[in-house]
Amino acid sequence: MANPTVTGPRGYSLPLSPNGLSSMLTPPPWHFAGEVVMVDYRVDPERAARFLPPGLTLGADPGAAAAVFAEWNWCSDDGAELAEPQRCQFAEFLIFIACEHRGRPLARCPYAWVDKSVPMMRGWVQGMPKQLGSIHQTRPKLVGRTGPRPGEGGRFDGTLSVNGRRVVEASVTTRELVAKPPLLHDIPLVHTKTTPAWIDGEVPGTALVTSRVDGVEFSPIHTGPAQLRFLDMIDSDFAGLAPVEVGAGYTFHYAETLHGGELLD
Amino acid sequence: MANPTVTGPRGYSLPLSPNGLSSMLTPPPWHFAGEVVMVDYRVDPERAARFLPPGLTLGADPGAAAAVFAEWNWCSDDGAELAEPQRCQFAEFLIFIACEHRGRPLARCPYAWVDKSVPMMRGWVQGMPKQLGSIHQTRPKLVGRTGPRPGEGGRFDGTLSVNGRRVVEASVTTRELVAKPPLLHDIPLVHTKTTPAWIDGEVPGTALVTSRVDGVEFSPIHTGPAQLRFLDMIDSDFAGLAPVEVGAGYTFHYAETLHGGELLD
Amino acid sequence: MANPTVTGPRGYSLPLSPNGLSSMLTPPPWHFAGEVVMVDYRVDPERAARFLPPGLTLGADPGAAAAVFAEWNWCSDDGAELAEPQRCQFAEFLIFIACEHRGRPLARCPYAWVDKSVPMMRGWVQGMPKQLGSIHQTRPKLVGRTGPRPGEGGRFDGTLSVNGRRVVEASVTTRELVAKPPLLHDIPLVHTKTTPAWIDGEVPGTALVTSRVDGVEFSPIHTGPAQLRFLDMIDSDFAGLAPVEVGAGYTFHYAETLHGGELLD
Amino acid sequence: MANPTVTGPRGYSLPLSPNGLSSMLTPPPWHFAGEVVMVDYRVDPERAARFLPPGLTLGADPGAAAAVFAEWNWCSDDGAELAEPQRCQFAEFLIFIACEHRGRPLARCPYAWVDKSVPMMRGWVQGMPKQLGSIHQTRPKLVGRTGPRPGEGGRFDGTLSVNGRRVVEASVTTRELVAKPPLLHDIPLVHTKTTPAWIDGEVPGTALVTSRVDGVEFSPIHTGPAQLRFLDMIDSDFAGLAPVEVGAGYTFHYAETLHGGELLD
Repeated sequence: MANPTVTGPRGYSLPLSPNGLSSMLTPPPWHFAGEVVMVDYRVDPERAARFLPPGLTLGADPGAAAAVFAEWNWCSDDGAELAEPQRCQFAEFLIFIACEHRGRPLARCPYAWVDKSVPMMRGWVQGMPKQLGSIHQTRPKLVGRTGPRPGEGGRFDGTLSVNGRRVVEASVTTRELVAKPPLLHDIPLVHTKTTPAWIDGEVPGTALVTSRVDGVEFSPIHTGPAQLRFLDMIDSDFAGLAPVEVGAGYTFHYAETLHGGELLD
Repeated sequence: MANPTVTGPRGYSLPLSPNGLSSMLTPPPWHFAGEVVMVDYRVDPERAARFLPPGLTLGADPGAAAAVFAEWNWCSDDGAELAEPQRCQFAEFLIFIACEHRGRPLARCPYAWVDKSVPMMRGWVQGMPKQLGSIHQTRPKLVGRTGPRPGEGGRFDGTLSVNGRRVVEASVTTRELVAKPPLLHDIPLVHTKTTPAWIDGEVPGTALVTSRVDGVEFSPIHTGPAQLRFLDMIDSDFAGLAPVEVGAGYTFHYAETLHGGELLD
Repeated sequence: MANPTVTGPRGYSLPLSPNGLSSMLTPPPWHFAGEVVMVDYRVDPERAARFLPPGLTLGADPGAAAAVFAEWNWCSDDGAELAEPQRCQFAEFLIFIACEHRGRPLARCPYAWVDKSVPMMRGWVQGMPKQLGSIHQTRPKLVGRTGPRPGEGGRFDGTLSVNGRRVVEASVTTRELVAKPPLLHDIPLVHTKTTPAWIDGEVPGTALVTSRVDGVEFSPIHTGPAQLRFLDMIDSDFAGLAPVEVGAGYTFHYAETLHGGELLD
Repeated sequence: MANPTVTGPRGYSLPLSPNGLSSMLTPPPWHFAGEVVMVDYRVDPERAARFLPPGLTLGADPGAAAAVFAEWNWCSDDGAELAEPQRCQFAEFLIFIACEHRGRPLARCPYAWVDKSVPMMRGWVQGMPKQLGSIHQTRPKLVGRTGPRPGEGGRFDGTLSVNGRRVVEASVTTRELVAKPPLLHDIPLVHTKTTPAWIDGEVPGTALVTSRVDGVEFSPIHTGPAQLRFLDMIDSDFAGLAPVEVGAGYTFHYAETLHGGELLD
C-alpha cells in the first residue's frame, strides 16, 4: 500500500485509519481457550425447525439442543491482547440446536450473548447473532471451600441476564469423566451471514457459512446431572427454544483457532 | 414473506427468528433526540487528509474538526423502546472532520464511541465506526446549585474513557445565544460502509454513503469558550486527530429521524 | 493538626491518608439536585408496621407508601465534583413508608438502591440502607419525539434491577400541575444508624436519626395516573412492601442540602 | 426475638427487615478462596510512615510494600452464595505496607479497591478502606495458547482503573516455586475501624483492629520477575505510595475464613 493518500484509510474493520491501527477487530486467525459449562436439553422439534433457514433440516435427532456457558481468553496471532486482561477475556452464553445440511450434522446457534463488544462484533462478521448480556459462571479455585477445583468435577452454576432481567439459569453437578465431548460442541457451527439493508434498493445479503477451525483441544470432560431454566422469555420467538426436557451436564476446558468462513454449497 | 416455514427465520438483523421478533435492530426509521456538548477544534490538515478515502478532500477549511458529546433518547417508529429507559438511552462521543465531495461540504466521522450495543451495531450498518466506551456529560436540573438549567447556558463537561483509560476531556462554558448551528453539526455525514472479509476469497465491500435524515430540530444554541484535551492516545493513528487549536464550545438539544443511506455517486 | 507523624493519617472517612486527600467521602454539607418520578401506593399496614423500630408507629395513614426514582447531581460545598460528570451523577430508587414519632409525621426508608458507591456509603453514614442496583428513568429532551420536555408533564417510566433481575417497574403519565408536593417527599426521613458488630463482645450501635436539611427547592409538580409493579421479590421480607393499591404519580425536580444528623429523643 | 413488633426490624447490617432476611451483609464467618498476583515493591519510608496511625511503626524493613491483585470466591457459612456466581465472585486490588505494633510485624492496607458492593461494605465493617474500581487479572486455562495453566507459573498481568482512569498496571512472569509465602501476605492485617461523624457533637470512632482468621491455605507459590507501574496518581497522598523500586512477583491461590475483629491493645 505504497500511497495511502491515494488508497485512503484502511483496517480489517471499522474504524479505518491511516495505518490500520485503529481497527476494532484484528484479522483472523483468532485463538480461544475457555471454561465451558454445558447442558444438553430438548426443544419442541416443530418450533426448532422454524429457526432453520432453507437448506438445513433438523436431522437425525430432532429437538436436540444445548445451553452453553463459557469464560474465554482470546488473542490475535501475535498474542498482544493477553497483556491486557480486560481486553482478552469475555463470557458467553450460547444456544445450539442440532441440524443437518445434505446429511452432514451441524450445530445451529440461534441465540448468543457475550459481555464485551469485540467478540460481539466478531460474531456478526461470521453470521453469529451475538448480543450483549451479563453472563456469570462458577470459577474453580485450587484451595478453600468455595467450590470446585480447576479441571475437576463439582457443582457449576451459570446465569444469563439481559437488559436487567434474568433470562437463563443452569446448574450442573459433574461427577464422572466421559470419553467423548457432547455432540453439539463437537460438530461445526453453521451461521447465516447477514447484512441488514441500509441503502435504498439494497437487498440484504444472506449466506450459509461454516468456519475453518483448527487447534481444537478438550481437557478431560466431566459429566453429571443438570438443571436448566428459562425465566424471562424476552419475546415469543425466543420462548420457542425453552427446554421441554433437560439432559446431562458437562464441564470442560476447550480451545480452538478460528481462521475464517466457508460457504456451504 | 408468505410462508415462513419455507423461507426460514427472518429479521431486519441478526438474530433471525421465526417471526422476526428477536432481531437486535429494528428497521429504520429511527428517531433521535439528544443533548449535545460540542467543541470546535483544529487538527493538523495533513494528518486529517490521511483519514479521507478516495473521493473526499479536505475542502475549504482544511483541519476543521469537532468533538461532540451527546446523551440521546432513541426509538423505532412505534416508539416501543421509550417505555424501557434502559433501552432507549445512550451516550455518544464523536469526532468530526470537515471534508468535501465534488465541492459539497460534508462531515467525516473517523471515530465514535457509544455506551450501548444497539446504537453501536446500528452505526456499523451505516458505516459509522462506533465502538463501546464510557461517556459522561453534565446533566442540567431545574433547581438547586449543582449546575446549569435545562436549555440554558452554563458550564458543561464531558469525558470519554475506553478500556479503563481516560481518552478525552472537554469543558464548555456557554454564555450567549448564537443564531446558526456549528457547521460540522449541520452538514451531512459521509461514511464508508465496510464489510470485513470473512469467507475465503471475499473482497471486503466498501462504499461511500450519506444518510437520509429529516425531522431535524435544534433548540436554541448557546456558545462560549471551551477546553479540549486528549489524554490517552489509544494508538498513533488516533493521535493524529488530537487538537492543535481549540475553538468555541456549544450546547444545544438536537433531534433527527434517520431513514436510510444513499450511495455517493 | 500540627504533627501528622504523631496524629497519623486522617480523613472524613476511609481511606485515611497523610493530608486527608484520599477520603472516599467529603464531609457534609452535600448539595443535591435531581429529577424525581414518584408513585404513591399502599402496603399492608400490618406488614409495614414490622419494618418500624421501637419509637415509631404507623401514624395517621397506616400503609401509606411511595416508590421514588431519581437522577441526581451532587457536590461538596466547593462544587469540585461538578467538573467530573462521572462522579457527580447517580440514580436512586427509594421506598418510603409513612410513620410517626411522638405524633410527628416522618418518612421511613426501608429499602434504597443507588448506582454509585459514594452515595451508597454516604447512605450508611446516615443510617440509610442503600445498596447497589441498576436504575433507569425517562430523560426529557427539549426537541424531537422521544418523550417529554424538561419540567413538563408526560409519560415517565422507571426501572430497578438488582443482581441482574428486574425488581420494580413504574410508569407515570403526568397531566396537570399540583400545588403541594406529595406528602412522603415533604416530611423528614428517619433512619436507624446501624453499626454491624465486628469486634468480640461488640454491641452493634443503633440510633434513630433525622437529617438537618436546608436549601429545599421544588420545581412545579406534575401529577397523573401511575402504574407500579414489583417483579422479582428478592426475599420474603421485601415482598411485604409490595403494592396492594397504586395511587397517583408525580414528576418534579427537587434540590436540598444535607448538613448532618440529629438524634430523635 | 419473641416479639418483633416490639424489638423492631433486624439484621446483621442495613437494610433491617422483619426477619433479618434483607441484610446486605451476612454475619461472619466468611469463607474466601482466590487467585493472587502479587508484586513486592518499595516505597519512600518517610512517606509510608505518614500513613501509619499512632501505635504503629515501620518496623524492621521500612518501606517494604506490596501490590496485590486477586479474584475471589466468597460465601457465608451455609455456602448459599455459591449457587449465584454473580454474587460470590469479586476482584480486588490491595496495597500493603509493612509495619509493627509493639514489635509484632503486621501489614497495613492504606488503599483497597474491589468491583462489588458487598465486599466493599464488608471492608468498612472491618476498617479496611475498600472503594469500587475496575480490576482485571490473567485467568489461566487448562488448554490452548492464550496464557498459563491453572496452578502453574507463566505471565500474569493485572490492571486497576478507577473512575475511568488507569491507575495501576502490573506484570509478573513466574518461573519457579518458592517454599514460603511472600511476607506481606503471611502476617496479620491491622485496620483502623473508622466511623465518620454524622450526628452533631459526634466524635468519630477509630480503633486499631486485627482480624481473627483461620482455614488459611496456600497453593504452591510461584515466583519470578515483576513490573509495577502507577499511572494516574488520583491524589498527592496516594502518590506517596508509588514504587521507588520493584521486587519479585508471586502467583498462588489462597484461602481463609474470616471470623471477626480483635482490638489491638
